[in-house]
Amino acid sequence: MTLRFALTPGEPAGIGPDLCLMLAQEVQPYPVITIGNRQLLSERAAQLELPIQLIEVQPDALPDTPAPANSLYVWDTPLYEPAVAGQLNQANAQYVLETLTRAGQGCLDGLFSAMITAPVHKGVINDAGVPFSGHTEFLQELTQSPEVVMMLATHGLRVALVTTHLPLRDVADAITSERVETITRILNTELQHKFSIKKPRILVCGLNPHAGEDGHLGREELDIILPVLDRLRGEGMDLVGPLPADTLFTPHNLKQCDAVLAMYHDQGLPVLKHRGFGAAVNITLGMQIIRTSVDHGTALDLAGTGEIDTGSLHIALETAYQMAASKFA
Amino acid sequence: MTLRFALTPGEPAGIGPDLCLMLAQEVQPYPVITIGNRQLLSERAAQLELPIQLIEVQPDALPDTPAPANSLYVWDTPLYEPAVAGQLNQANAQYVLETLTRAGQGCLDGLFSAMITAPVHKGVINDAGVPFSGHTEFLQELTQSPEVVMMLATHGLRVALVTTHLPLRDVADAITSERVETITRILNTELQHKFSIKKPRILVCGLNPHAGEDGHLGREELDIILPVLDRLRGEGMDLVGPLPADTLFTPHNLKQCDAVLAMYHDQGLPVLKHRGFGAAVNITLGMQIIRTSVDHGTALDLAGTGEIDTGSLHIALETAYQMAASKFA
Repeated sequence: MTLRFALTPGEPAGIGPDLCLMLAQEVQPYPVITIGNRQLLSERAAQLELPIQLIEVQPDALPDTPAPANSLYVWDTPLYEPAVAGQLNQANAQYVLETLTRAGQGCLDGLFSAMITAPVHKGVINDAGVPFSGHTEFLQELTQSPEVVMMLATHGLRVALVTTHLPLRDVADAITSERVETITRILNTELQHKFSIKKPRILVCGLNPHAGEDGHLGREELDIILPVLDRLRGEGMDLVGPLPADTLFTPHNLKQCDAVLAMYHDQGLPVLKHRGFGAAVNITLGMQIIRTSVDHGTALDLAGTGEIDTGSLHIALETAYQMAASKFA
Repeated sequence: MTLRFALTPGEPAGIGPDLCLMLAQEVQPYPVITIGNRQLLSERAAQLELPIQLIEVQPDALPDTPAPANSLYVWDTPLYEPAVAGQLNQANAQYVLETLTRAGQGCLDGLFSAMITAPVHKGVINDAGVPFSGHTEFLQELTQSPEVVMMLATHGLRVALVTTHLPLRDVADAITSERVETITRILNTELQHKFSIKKPRILVCGLNPHAGEDGHLGREELDIILPVLDRLRGEGMDLVGPLPADTLFTPHNLKQCDAVLAMYHDQGLPVLKHRGFGAAVNITLGMQIIRTSVDHGTALDLAGTGEIDTGSLHIALETAYQMAASKFA
């Protein structure tokens, strides 16, 4: 089948539209359809002095070949009020959600092989009266996925998380056998199916410093994590751990594994973002569809300036291409 | 004054004696006195086939000039039973503590400008019936220091910790205003006095993911950390934060700061050890004396093999030299 990708520019006042336009300067290996407002993209291109040709496409006749250099396929999606770089406007919150719905539903319907998302602004959507806690939860509901896993990746390192956006004091109680097992299973399966890794080798962090030091610094490793890993190893999974997080990220260890499973946000992501600064991708696992994202925010103050780095968008696209090629091979 | 340094080989069955001997192949810029058992060092040198001359010294007549290449100053300290590489022996636990006491007391008495420690084995000391939770606590008691701070350093990055070896579920409650203030003050003062940094710039992590996201992911930033930092900023300290830990460790941020203050062990040390693999040093701040340490363990299985990396010992020595030169300037 022909691979085809959906790209959502996210918050219209942020750098998402700029990223899409800067990307259009190069030819992509596959057709990439930007799902956003045509007028906004046209105005932002003028502001950036980028001579990008916008090619409007319709969902019932999407292109099968890449757009030429300096052109962008656009599935036009109406704004409610004109967007101004740097100025949030609640009136356009529904526009942002509509672009995500078109992309996600398009993936479910087979129009797209994967979707890549530029950053949204959670606050302005919530201020508009729409409960919204992020791309991941929105797409989880759209795709009716019982559980999803957040994974970040950069060159030579993938880090998936057992828990994500929880206050630190709630983390220990959230590390249950059920959760560790579910997340590990999703990670293992998705590395097989969407990354073509036959038998993924996964390094698993402990929860406590020094992985609990045989129970002296906490018992979650002995009581929860280790029994789950032993059970899954019995099924044939290649799981190493629980390991102390501070000494896990050595070159030797990382060369010999396909992913690291961290128990919580700030145990795994500081090292990933340190290593992959400006070139990290956020991947949602566990859904029927493929979704990758840049790992940065809307950067409202930089919208329209052109002084932004497309490194994260590039790796988000490349990762989506690879995952789609793997899934649809 | 003449700078002079104490080096403790730590656990006699581990790689500590090997490290001291390997170090002796090169001339050091200052006199370094190894406080350990002469017979053990002699046997280990033979095992490693290293032709190192052991020069016995006495505490009342310590040398003021560096030892020549391939020689080692030794303050002989009696073992209770002969040490065998790789085999722990409770009988020698008191020997290990005696070397630390000689080094620490020697620093207090002005015999030494700083002490550098090779790894000890906590388990075997405790098994011998001596309550011992680590070098840091032992030296804290010896020097009667009310509070100490653990800081790790490598090229281009220093990370100090507000809490250290606590189960993760106990961390949030340990982040009190008093503790954050005390640790920040010690870090700031020690960077001034022992690193010659006039006005240290310190980046401070939040406790929660995204530094609590304005209270949505935990309130410790708003209720505890921020008020303390504001108060200390009012005194003239250059403190930035609380910042999200995942995006703090960018090249831009690290270039512009002298240290990062993390709230807990696995928030700060994975990135430090990833960056500084094989070349990180552990520094105890807040004591009257200067103490640096290698950042690795006893590696019992490698003792006597010669297949070890002296990178961490080198940076531990260099750091001690710099700190002593700064303090005694």
